[in-house]
Amino acid sequence: MTRLDELDDFTVEVPSWAYGNSGTRFKVFARPGVPRDPYEKLSDAAQVHRLTGLAPRVSLHIPWDLVDDWTDLRAHAEKLGVKIGAINSNLFQEDDYRLGSLCHPDSTIRRKAVQHHLRCLDVMRQTGSTDLKIWLPDGLNYAGQDSLRGRQDRLAESLREIYDALDDDHRILLEYKFFEPHFYSMDIPDWGTSLVHCLALGDKATVVLDTGHHAPGTNIEFIVMQLLRVNKLGAFDFNSRFYADDDLIVGSADPFQLFRIMAEIVGVDAHRPASKVNFMLDQCHNIEEKIPGQIRSVLNVEQALAKALLVDQDALAAAQRSGDVLGAHAVLMDAYETDVRTVLADRREARGLPRDPVAAFAASGYADTVAAARVGGQQAGWGA
Amino acid sequence: MTRLDELDDFTVEVPSWAYGNSGTRFKVFARPGVPRDPYEKLSDAAQVHRLTGLAPRVSLHIPWDLVDDWTDLRAHAEKLGVKIGAINSNLFQEDDYRLGSLCHPDSTIRRKAVQHHLRCLDVMRQTGSTDLKIWLPDGLNYAGQDSLRGRQDRLAESLREIYDALDDDHRILLEYKFFEPHFYSMDIPDWGTSLVHCLALGDKATVVLDTGHHAPGTNIEFIVMQLLRVNKLGAFDFNSRFYADDDLIVGSADPFQLFRIMAEIVGVDAHRPASKVNFMLDQCHNIEEKIPGQIRSVLNVEQALAKALLVDQDALAAAQRSGDVLGAHAVLMDAYETDVRTVLADRREARGLPRDPVAAFAASGYADTVAAARVGGQQAGWGA
Amino acid sequence: MTRLDELDDFTVEVPSWAYGNSGTRFKVFARPGVPRDPYEKLSDAAQVHRLTGLAPRVSLHIPWDLVDDWTDLRAHAEKLGVKIGAINSNLFQEDDYRLGSLCHPDSTIRRKAVQHHLRCLDVMRQTGSTDLKIWLPDGLNYAGQDSLRGRQDRLAESLREIYDALDDDHRILLEYKFFEPHFYSMDIPDWGTSLVHCLALGDKATVVLDTGHHAPGTNIEFIVMQLLRVNKLGAFDFNSRFYADDDLIVGSADPFQLFRIMAEIVGVDAHRPASKVNFMLDQCHNIEEKIPGQIRSVLNVEQALAKALLVDQDALAAAQRSGDVLGAHAVLMDAYETDVRTVLADRREARGLPRDPVAAFAASGYADTVAAARVGGQQAGWGA
Amino acid sequence: MTRLDELDDFTVEVPSWAYGNSGTRFKVFARPGVPRDPYEKLSDAAQVHRLTGLAPRVSLHIPWDLVDDWTDLRAHAEKLGVKIGAINSNLFQEDDYRLGSLCHPDSTIRRKAVQHHLRCLDVMRQTGSTDLKIWLPDGLNYAGQDSLRGRQDRLAESLREIYDALDDDHRILLEYKFFEPHFYSMDIPDWGTSLVHCLALGDKATVVLDTGHHAPGTNIEFIVMQLLRVNKLGAFDFNSRFYADDDLIVGSADPFQLFRIMAEIVGVDAHRPASKVNFMLDQCHNIEEKIPGQIRSVLNVEQALAKALLVDQDALAAAQRSGDVLGAHAVLMDAYETDVRTVLADRREARGLPRDPVAAFAASGYADTVAAARVGGQQAGWGA
Repeated sequence: MTRLDELDDFTVEVPSWAYGNSGTRFKVFARPGVPRDPYEKLSDAAQVHRLTGLAPRVSLHIPWDLVDDWTDLRAHAEKLGVKIGAINSNLFQEDDYRLGSLCHPDSTIRRKAVQHHLRCLDVMRQTGSTDLKIWLPDGLNYAGQDSLRGRQDRLAESLREIYDALDDDHRILLEYKFFEPHFYSMDIPDWGTSLVHCLALGDKATVVLDTGHHAPGTNIEFIVMQLLRVNKLGAFDFNSRFYADDDLIVGSADPFQLFRIMAEIVGVDAHRPASKVNFMLDQCHNIEEKIPGQIRSVLNVEQALAKALLVDQDALAAAQRSGDVLGAHAVLMDAYETDVRTVLADRREARGLPRDPVAAFAASGYADTVAAARVGGQQAGWGA
Repeated sequence: MTRLDELDDFTVEVPSWAYGNSGTRFKVFARPGVPRDPYEKLSDAAQVHRLTGLAPRVSLHIPWDLVDDWTDLRAHAEKLGVKIGAINSNLFQEDDYRLGSLCHPDSTIRRKAVQHHLRCLDVMRQTGSTDLKIWLPDGLNYAGQDSLRGRQDRLAESLREIYDALDDDHRILLEYKFFEPHFYSMDIPDWGTSLVHCLALGDKATVVLDTGHHAPGTNIEFIVMQLLRVNKLGAFDFNSRFYADDDLIVGSADPFQLFRIMAEIVGVDAHRPASKVNFMLDQCHNIEEKIPGQIRSVLNVEQALAKALLVDQDALAAAQRSGDVLGAHAVLMDAYETDVRTVLADRREARGLPRDPVAAFAASGYADTVAAARVGGQQAGWGA
Repeated sequence: MTRLDELDDFTVEVPSWAYGNSGTRFKVFARPGVPRDPYEKLSDAAQVHRLTGLAPRVSLHIPWDLVDDWTDLRAHAEKLGVKIGAINSNLFQEDDYRLGSLCHPDSTIRRKAVQHHLRCLDVMRQTGSTDLKIWLPDGLNYAGQDSLRGRQDRLAESLREIYDALDDDHRILLEYKFFEPHFYSMDIPDWGTSLVHCLALGDKATVVLDTGHHAPGTNIEFIVMQLLRVNKLGAFDFNSRFYADDDLIVGSADPFQLFRIMAEIVGVDAHRPASKVNFMLDQCHNIEEKIPGQIRSVLNVEQALAKALLVDQDALAAAQRSGDVLGAHAVLMDAYETDVRTVLADRREARGLPRDPVAAFAASGYADTVAAARVGGQQAGWGA
Repeated sequence: MTRLDELDDFTVEVPSWAYGNSGTRFKVFARPGVPRDPYEKLSDAAQVHRLTGLAPRVSLHIPWDLVDDWTDLRAHAEKLGVKIGAINSNLFQEDDYRLGSLCHPDSTIRRKAVQHHLRCLDVMRQTGSTDLKIWLPDGLNYAGQDSLRGRQDRLAESLREIYDALDDDHRILLEYKFFEPHFYSMDIPDWGTSLVHCLALGDKATVVLDTGHHAPGTNIEFIVMQLLRVNKLGAFDFNSRFYADDDLIVGSADPFQLFRIMAEIVGVDAHRPASKVNFMLDQCHNIEEKIPGQIRSVLNVEQALAKALLVDQDALAAAQRSGDVLGAHAVLMDAYETDVRTVLADRREARGLPRDPVAAFAASGYADTVAAARVGGQQAGWGA
């Protein structure tokens, strides 16, 4: 199992917003101990890395994570052993954005949305982040509400302004989403649309694939393969779904799908840092404990990758070449059916990490400590 | 076109919560003039009936619409020309309901949820309502989280307690929903499950069909037909969807589907009051104006029904009997393609109603009046 | 792992038609060695049982599997170590059935379809089969083509005639299917409709759940649970799907789903013979080898059941009771992640069976033998 | 309604295979009078144009429509008043193509598939056709069966060979399809993949959009808009679907969707010949009469286009600019709700065509004539 050594430099980026309150449109359930500011979010996120060794970066979301002194926040992060990762812009929580942001029919609103990204670039410069992640919530609820095409043209123009403001080491990660928060159409509903814009923009624009943002039945690993093939896969937003953008723990709904995705990744060594693919989580924890949810998630990604690394590539290629349908499938399934939990626990132990990070977190008392300490103030949530 | 006279006693029930603020998990956009209490909601709802003559009842939602003096609210409604319709229980906004309500593993929580329904029955007695509508938001996000079967048994037990407390003229309308707010499973995910419980409960329990609560591709008019056939269709929650429970204006996403539903209704005279089928709206207006949205909705339902009444039943039956596939389909399409807007406007005019209710509302100045008057206080929303 | 002993009396029924040629509407790919009659199909099916010990019964399909001398076929089967299982009626390959069979507008055609089932009952009497499986391909392609409700009433009448002709030890297994071969509606599109008819018929009518016959996103284990709960789950038709009724090898598309289904089965001991649930395969092998495809399939079902038997039920119940979402989910996942391949191979070896049945089949030379022997004649396919 | 004059030069191309027998994998229902060769197919197709004036071109499918003397077939067509349209290659009916054609792991099979296209180009040269339509049925049924990426690379190479053989006035229409005949993945599953290949090939490669080839819930008019925007929409394959690639009469499942598609077309004048968008039908008639089915289909497309031409573009743009969600939607719906049947019948009458082409066909006796004449021989079907 020597190829498992390639796990050594594999990392997952966790989102600051996973530690705040979240929910559905029906209800946001609050929890004791939820962070009230970016400092506390980073503290929580650092627990995940401390216990798994897998999550050394934390994505921020602007303006939710705005602070007065970025040098101080950065120092706080580094003291905790983590770094600031991708900067996420927020285009959905201003009243001005009711009918869109970068696609809005009114140029004043579009300008405001573009300006917001220029501020995000400033945050990137101060935090050392290189990834600007844009999830565009724009879309329509009714046929005829606005011009589908006009909105694409406005989008292209807005993105161009943002792109032109990038530093040399910056890149745009442009996300697509099938539906929600709009229901008749989204302005970037699929990977094809994201790719069209990235190709128009240039080399510094790449696609981010959120595993929960596809139509029912979509073969996601095919898209992973295709984006890698055209050199435009910038990042993942991992999570699980049964129906919509359910934002559940990655690997909890269809672990075989996650394995197949990682098998495409491994096939072209995209799990290695040189690929520059950023493996991020984008999940909400509505009813489950937040920090353990993130721990479980990064372990699930690692487990899927480990199994993918176990695929006997020679046997697979031979069976594929000979047209042995069941034989080739069996080679893949043999890797998937392998129980890697013990070998991964051994690896953790060898690196000074707990064999069972979830149990170690429970035993650490951290949850009780922060619940006791974080009294008063406003708990962070999607709206704060 | 004499069968259009059957429109005379057709009515649609509008929901009090449609006039409050609503949104997605990402954002609730506020609007000037939004009602702050049940009285103001009824005033808004009454506009719909005043301009269309189609919406003489308003559903309430408990506890959102709790008032101190039900006699007074009832008098307020009657003065406005409307009545109190179905009483909707709320099982999703208490922190206690994080893991369920009528299905919760803890009997204390189940008892609380049952008690809430007994209070709703009291509201029914005081408002003259006969319909208790139960939408059960219970469900699971993760496989294994709880026992699917155990939850059904608890649900049956909870429903039995509620059922046994019904008055003779009361009935339960039991709703099903494919997904949301839970993603691995809902505890009443389909009409089959709702029917199983209604059959176990007895004659006073019937199914409510929300047009947005089905899996992709589901033939909804088939379910309408089947529930009518087994005498268990209690009510509709009308709205439109493209993907999930989008809660858009009914008839805006697939007007042909709405027509097909109404054609099944007309086929067995279920549009007539004697059928006791309650035609309700259950929609949100996130980005569009709320009162015009409701006006448009009730007009869309009436338009679909009018077209369904125009189906040449004799020609249809003859073509069906003779196995003339295209001929039978053409009979249906001929009714659907008929433009009934003018004849419906004529009917309105003849009844002293505006030909164009949406324009009449705009001209009425009502929106400006309430925007000016409703300053201060807390706007109603899904959470208030 | 003592509960794995419960695998001892678990069996899967294989379909005679899996050994014939099959395909899509675009192409049926022929294979050398494909059986030309029911005797040869039984020989192939017996290979599966010989190598796995799991598949002692073979479903027949009438008229595809009609023979002159049932006593002789039965003796042939018994000599091969297998029995005749469920009898499947065919309602889709007569020109008369263009517009339906049991639901056809013309009573002459309905009568013909009913008569076909009476003949199937005769086959059951002669083969010792007790299960009459009815998959109803009836449906409509166009709205208006026929009366949805009229067809239900005709269906109820047709089924009643068949039901009344059952012997005391017979039962009807009534299948439902979301779509195909009709596209606007099927006449039994969902489990609810199948249940409605089974309830009307009586105790000898039960539902058969084909894992490929649901809308996208449907939680199948929920339906399994509900049908078991109301004592109406008669049988499974196992297979895999990504999109439609793909009829791939069970467990190849979503092995976690298969495990979850088996976990519901184990939860109420429905894997034991006393439950009378018939676990059948209904798959096509379009591009892969047929006998190995069936071997792989029964092994996949056994593997999923084995994992389900490993679930720590006490730990699961405790976590569920305490509302520990992640903990309860983890108990389930621990069983799923366990690699049971070795223990299952050990069990096979202990019973005198090959550790690797797929390899043993390849080594047996059976495929070459029949390819050489079965020259001339008409290969069996869906149409023969 | 002067913009309806733009209907004058709008045409729809009909497929030769629509007049042959077709069906599902379960059954192909034969019909009396079905054509037995390309000459008879053209005769049937010419009926559609004769009665509607809308369908002056007929797509051919190679090898199904191979003839010895193309000059003669072309003369036959012209005598009937129609022309040869797009040439469709067939990559799914050779046993060699079990594991793929242009993507097959074996270069011998890929070469064969490329050669087939070179022959199609010869047919184009002899028939005056300029469009080579490639629907690639290649794909996988099992994860691991072959390399997703390797297949893309082989596809690119195969397409390059074909592209390089095009004449100056030729173009490739490259189709995508979500699933079927393969179920784990298709090698061109979505418009993004088709676009990636067309961009790599050059200006003479464009995408063809089949309205039945998308995931559930996909907003098809968005894709139409995007492909037009990037100047890569070559053609439509029109048909209707409820679930999969149902291939029903266009406009029969969701007429509002067809209208929305045509509204995007009209928005950029793509309905005019100068756009070079080829509006084709690709449908099967399994249970309905074939020629009337095609007549109904071209009329449905014309009707949707007529309604789209009635959209008050100024009012729409004004409402969109002002952010009037309901107002803009209402402008679109006003056009959709307009009954254009009479004005279209008037237009037909003014052009010397029957007001009711379906009735005129029935009255013509053509069906009886060909049923009497076409006795003996082999009826055309998907396989012949």
